[in-house]
Amino acid sequence: MTQNIYDDPEFFEGYSQLPRSIVGLDGAPEWASLRALLPDIRGRRVVDLGCGYGWFCRWAAEQGAESVLGIDVSVMMLAKAAAMTTDTAITYTHGDLEHLELPQASFDLAYSSLAFHYLEHLPKLLATVYNALVPGGSLIFSVEHPLLTAPSQPAWTRDAEGRKRWPIDSYLLEGLRITNWISEGVVKQHRTLSTYINLLLNAGFNISHVDEWGPTDAQIAKQPNLAEERQRPTFLLIAANR
Amino acid sequence: MTQNIYDDPEFFEGYSQLPRSIVGLDGAPEWASLRALLPDIRGRRVVDLGCGYGWFCRWAAEQGAESVLGIDVSVMMLAKAAAMTTDTAITYTHGDLEHLELPQASFDLAYSSLAFHYLEHLPKLLATVYNALVPGGSLIFSVEHPLLTAPSQPAWTRDAEGRKRWPIDSYLLEGLRITNWISEGVVKQHRTLSTYINLLLNAGFNISHVDEWGPTDAQIAKQPNLAEERQRPTFLLIAANR
Repeated sequence: MTQNIYDDPEFFEGYSQLPRSIVGLDGAPEWASLRALLPDIRGRRVVDLGCGYGWFCRWAAEQGAESVLGIDVSVMMLAKAAAMTTDTAITYTHGDLEHLELPQASFDLAYSSLAFHYLEHLPKLLATVYNALVPGGSLIFSVEHPLLTAPSQPAWTRDAEGRKRWPIDSYLLEGLRITNWISEGVVKQHRTLSTYINLLLNAGFNISHVDEWGPTDAQIAKQPNLAEERQRPTFLLIAANR
Repeated sequence: MTQNIYDDPEFFEGYSQLPRSIVGLDGAPEWASLRALLPDIRGRRVVDLGCGYGWFCRWAAEQGAESVLGIDVSVMMLAKAAAMTTDTAITYTHGDLEHLELPQASFDLAYSSLAFHYLEHLPKLLATVYNALVPGGSLIFSVEHPLLTAPSQPAWTRDAEGRKRWPIDSYLLEGLRITNWISEGVVKQHRTLSTYINLLLNAGFNISHVDEWGPTDAQIAKQPNLAEERQRPTFLLIAANR
C-alpha cells in the first residue's frame, strides 16, 4: 500500500497551510496550464484520482459535469472535502489508487493532480483507468517533475558566481525516493519523463500534449520566487486519450 | 542557415577520431537502442537526415532497403561517405536540413542521428518529413538529451562528498547554446523534452516510444565511464509514426 502521509497529523497540518490548500485551484501556479489541457466538462462523467480536499471535484461540478467521483486514500482529506459541498453530482470514496477498481467505460475524463508520483504500481492503475474511460476519453494529470524526484539530494546549490543550480544525479535510477517535505520520510517514486510516456503508450493511450510547467511573466511579476521554475521545472503535466 | 561546423577542418579532424567515426554504428553506445526502434527495413525507402559518414545508409542498404537517401550539410563528410560505398541503392545529397524539400509520400522511414539539436527551424523540417512519409511511415531519431543542452555551464561538478552531479539551470529557457565540444563555439539549440514531443504531435505524428538512453550493465562492465550516463543521460531517442 502507498504511504498515507496525508493522514499523518503533522503532515496534514503542514499541507493545510499551503496556498493550494487554502486558496484552492487558483493557489496552484500550474492550475491554469492543467485546466487548458482539459476537454469541455459539461455533461461529462469525471473521476478525480487523489482528490484531496475536493477543490477540483467542486470546480468540475460547477462547470456542469454530470457526475464527479473523488477518490483519495486520506480519510482526513475526504472528511474535509465532504464537509465543503452539498452538490449531489459529487461522490467521495475512500480508496488506495494502487488497488483501485473502476467500472468499465464509465468515465469521460480521468483527472489527477500530484498523486501518481506516490504510486509504486502505476502501470496497474493506468490499465484500470484506460478500461474505465470511454473510447475518446481523456486522462489529464500532473506529477512532480522527474528533475525534482531524481536527485539523491534534491536541493538548490549555488555555483562560484552565486547562481542557482539544481544538481542532478540518479536520473535513470528509478524507484523509491525518501524526502523531507512538510514531514520527514515522505515516500515517492522517481520515474523518468520517458517512463511516464511509455507507460501511457503501453496501456493503450495516445499522447496528446506534454507540459513541463513554467511560470508566465505575469506570474513571476506577482510572485518573484517562481522564476527559479524556469531553471528547473517542478511540475510535469500530461494529456493522453483512450 | 545552420552552422556547418562539420566542414571546419579542426572539428572534422576531431570528430573523425571519435569511436562512432572510426568503428561506425557499433562505436555509438546508443545504437543498439536506436536500432531496436526501427521497423523492418527490407524493401523500404529510407531517408537519413544528417547522414555524416553514411554508416547508417550503408547498414540500411545491407539490410535490404530498396533505396537510401543520405542528406548532409557537410561536403567533407559526404565526400568521405561517397568514397566508402559503391552500393547503387544509396544516394548522397548535399543539403541543409533547415531548408530541405522532399517529394511527398516517398519514404517509409526517416532516420536521423544527433542532428536535430543543431536546427533552429525544426518545426519546418518535421512538417517536411511528415509529408515525405507514407501513412504508417516512421520517424526514428536521436538528439542530445535536453539535460545536456540546457545548462549554461554544461559540466560535471562534485558535491561535498565527491559524488558527481550535473548542475541544471535554464532548462525552460529554450534556444541558442554555444558550447565547446571538439572545437570552440559549436552552436546548438536547446529544446525541452516536452517541446520535442509537442512539435512532433503538432506536425501530425503519433508518438510510439521515447527512450532517455542509458547503458546496460554489460556496456558499463566493458566501458566503466558509461556509468555516469545513469546519473544524467546524454541521448534522447524518439520513435514516431505518421
